[in-house]
Amino acid sequence: MNSYVMRFDRVTYAVTMGRWEPNARERLETAALDLFVENGYEETTVTQIAERAGMNRATFFRHFADKREVLFGGEDVLAGLFADAITAAPSGAALTDCLWSALAAAEVVMTTKLRTAASRRILVVARSSELQERGLLKHARIATSVTASLRERGEDELTARLGAEIVLLAFNIAFERWMRAKSCEPFSPFAQAALYDLQVRTAELSHA
Amino acid sequence: MNSYVMRFDRVTYAVTMGRWEPNARERLETAALDLFVENGYEETTVTQIAERAGMNRATFFRHFADKREVLFGGEDVLAGLFADAITAAPSGAALTDCLWSALAAAEVVMTTKLRTAASRRILVVARSSELQERGLLKHARIATSVTASLRERGEDELTARLGAEIVLLAFNIAFERWMRAKSCEPFSPFAQAALYDLQVRTAELSHA
Repeated sequence: MNSYVMRFDRVTYAVTMGRWEPNARERLETAALDLFVENGYEETTVTQIAERAGMNRATFFRHFADKREVLFGGEDVLAGLFADAITAAPSGAALTDCLWSALAAAEVVMTTKLRTAASRRILVVARSSELQERGLLKHARIATSVTASLRERGEDELTARLGAEIVLLAFNIAFERWMRAKSCEPFSPFAQAALYDLQVRTAELSHA
Repeated sequence: MNSYVMRFDRVTYAVTMGRWEPNARERLETAALDLFVENGYEETTVTQIAERAGMNRATFFRHFADKREVLFGGEDVLAGLFADAITAAPSGAALTDCLWSALAAAEVVMTTKLRTAASRRILVVARSSELQERGLLKHARIATSVTASLRERGEDELTARLGAEIVLLAFNIAFERWMRAKSCEPFSPFAQAALYDLQVRTAELSHA
């Protein structure tokens, strides 16, 4: 139960950051994605994004370090969810249970709304190597955060790094399959299947 | 033997690209690294790099798409070495043998000269998130290239992606250990140990 509370804390935190502007962060994200789809990422300025959201440039930069960051807030939330879930897993939990806890914690953010935004974001990111690079940096930070959480549980360095790569790969595979589904379905079964599929394959790679 | 010839072909290709300026590529890389260490990456211009190497801007851009690329030529070579080695592995080779072939193929570029340059490059990249992003993009491309080579051998999509992540992680771990060694030692034993260490750990992750 503890991990569940922490998850919601994390999500609430992301939303309440802009309490001086109700939902400022979310409105900026929506405005940015709208403009990127309509006019292109390169062609859109921070001022235009802020104006579309009914704010000014200064407010934008209170929430995001630069124009690219507005597309990757979800990755920061995910890094926190994964890390919190691993930390909150029962002491003595097996490594695979910790990885599963991390993936299960993503469920709370994998909503219909996120799915709609994600399908538009994929199109924008596909056209910009600058955005692909930022996405990879975010993924690397998630991996670092998962690695640190696993190490804190007493896993050795290599196990922690391998575990982090497996979580990321399982999440990516689950996400791709979840996006391809005809309607928005719960994310957890996709995450569980992807992790299971990878576990079957690690057997082939493990030292006999 | 076939893979060995292909490896040298790839390396030769990288070197002979600038045949109208002997070793132009390598001279530009050295000049860039010197200037980045001396004055900082941000502060250095392409014109300065070209001048230090005794060339002009146009020559720089014949070899590199932008200022960042000059630091990551090695990654492109590595992607080719890995992919060629996997393709050249005997038909019927086990997945782990293919991964080992990929890592063993790196030996040819892991020289004393590369080690010295790498220790300076690490310092430059550590100070720039822009360069870290480009490094991650290059690693993602290596992973894509390894995945494609494994798929061409008949591995399924997930196995190919998992195999690529293991190769990358093993390479990174081997590289870190190799860099920490007191003198420049052959790379292959480091690669072999890193792959073995990961294989031991995949057993813990595989489905019992």
